[in-house]
Amino acid sequence: MLAEFNLENILSRDDAHVVGIDVGGTNLRVGVVNGSGLAWEHRVQADFSRMCRELPAEQALVAIIEALATGIRMALDQYPQVNAVGIGFPGFIDPTTQQVAQSPNLPGLLNVDISGPLSQMFGLPVIVENDALAAAYGEYVLGGLDVRSLVYLGLGTGVGGGFILDGKPFPGFHGVAMEVGHIIVEPDGRQCGCGNRGCLEQYASASGVVLSYRELSGRHEGDAAFVARQAELGDAHALAAYRRAAEALAQGLASILKVLDAQHVVIGGGMSLAWSLMQEAFHTRLQQDLIPVLRQRVSVGISQGGDHAGILGAALLGHAAKLRS
Amino acid sequence: MLAEFNLENILSRDDAHVVGIDVGGTNLRVGVVNGSGLAWEHRVQADFSRMCRELPAEQALVAIIEALATGIRMALDQYPQVNAVGIGFPGFIDPTTQQVAQSPNLPGLLNVDISGPLSQMFGLPVIVENDALAAAYGEYVLGGLDVRSLVYLGLGTGVGGGFILDGKPFPGFHGVAMEVGHIIVEPDGRQCGCGNRGCLEQYASASGVVLSYRELSGRHEGDAAFVARQAELGDAHALAAYRRAAEALAQGLASILKVLDAQHVVIGGGMSLAWSLMQEAFHTRLQQDLIPVLRQRVSVGISQGGDHAGILGAALLGHAAKLRS
Repeated sequence: MLAEFNLENILSRDDAHVVGIDVGGTNLRVGVVNGSGLAWEHRVQADFSRMCRELPAEQALVAIIEALATGIRMALDQYPQVNAVGIGFPGFIDPTTQQVAQSPNLPGLLNVDISGPLSQMFGLPVIVENDALAAAYGEYVLGGLDVRSLVYLGLGTGVGGGFILDGKPFPGFHGVAMEVGHIIVEPDGRQCGCGNRGCLEQYASASGVVLSYRELSGRHEGDAAFVARQAELGDAHALAAYRRAAEALAQGLASILKVLDAQHVVIGGGMSLAWSLMQEAFHTRLQQDLIPVLRQRVSVGISQGGDHAGILGAALLGHAAKLRS
Repeated sequence: MLAEFNLENILSRDDAHVVGIDVGGTNLRVGVVNGSGLAWEHRVQADFSRMCRELPAEQALVAIIEALATGIRMALDQYPQVNAVGIGFPGFIDPTTQQVAQSPNLPGLLNVDISGPLSQMFGLPVIVENDALAAAYGEYVLGGLDVRSLVYLGLGTGVGGGFILDGKPFPGFHGVAMEVGHIIVEPDGRQCGCGNRGCLEQYASASGVVLSYRELSGRHEGDAAFVARQAELGDAHALAAYRRAAEALAQGLASILKVLDAQHVVIGGGMSLAWSLMQEAFHTRLQQDLIPVLRQRVSVGISQGGDHAGILGAALLGHAAKLRS
């Protein structure tokens, strides 16, 4: 068992084994999940972003499906008893058609069917869900299912989010719910790729921290992990960069909670490893920005799935789809 | 028929008559609704806010229930066949207990049961819901029920909101969902009663327009209707005050849609009467602030229920509760 998670209440009764795939920037993370946790994991190099930039859309789609099929095949070699597949994909999944409607980081993919061809190829139910929403579902299940509504915020190279309502992922009408990285926290602030200024992910993501550190220190080196190490050495600029990230995150979350009034919040993604640098400023700002009736009434926790939340959530959604089929 | 609305698909089959009550600042608006619309309406003077400030909490509660009972009694005198009552109340309604958990404008009301005593008094099902959520439900029904998710924004002395998801009001975990008047659109902006600065309702409400006009013109007279008349006469400061309201509204709505990805938006409340002064700036700013995938894909309309939306929605929720009972 690579990583233990108590999924017995969901997966063990029928000795289910499910493939979960987390599609990242330059690789696929493929895992097999059962009642005890993550039994097997493998990374498949696959630069989907480059494929989509360099190939015509149809060829890119074929290449993407082939890479996903390679991952599934490797998992099936290890665990032939696998009976469902879930894929967390960085794009907007149309809740009606289950197609990838659009993917900001994978240009050219417009209303494409990924689950259909894979399902046919392997004779298994295959479900595709937005990657952050899959991670949110993973965290929801790990949290023990006794939560009515859960907001997940994933702090990585961007800021993603997912909302779980009454045990079900909430995709929104166009599959675009919880695009919270683009909530504007600083009108006229930093330019964002979406065309606006001051979006949350320009401050609270790994790249946002690096930007803040460079602005403050005048130094032009290193990534977010470097800034975290500098902060731990007491570098005031690095500490301030993480504080700015924490405050932006709290600002954005306060707006989210004024809309959703969720019961529980989970912070995940790579940046959550540096939570000790963010925690204090985050809580102070969150309590300040919330409306009085919600202050101290929303619980906030750190990811229990860590960097496996995406694989886990995708697999669990695949399992749920299997049960429905 | 005081106001005609096509509610036949909901109310006429069983010749239902339902009381709807909209609890406002200084009076109750009581109506009887049937399949053809609003059959009867009456205002009952009742300054709940003053009662809550001047009386001990228990006495205030008794006075509030008495005033509501007076309204219901008057409606029953006119329409003895009434078989349910719905009340839109300015407060947070606990979705589990149906009690009024708290009311920002009616201090002292904490976890009080309003529906229970009234239901017992009249032998009818009585449901209490947040006033903006009731208005949202009224607009949802008037829109023809073919919308999966609807955001309602009510621009009055404050800015309220309601979200209807799959035909049902969405109260949130603590009954505090869609407290969108307190989304911060202007960090370090105008002081708000909630303790924060720059809340949406400091700009996009009737009082926000008056504040903007006074800031811009240096004049210290008149209400939002006065500013609207000035704007129609071409007063540049008045026009700018409504533009500022429209832009703030669009800013707030963009954040809401990045979270909820709703299908349809309805703008209501007294300020929507001046929509012609806001429309252009609102749409320009909304398209700018949305993420690209949502631009031009969310429909926005003006209230169909007008200032009757609250009564209608409350009545329709009362009817729905009757069907469940």
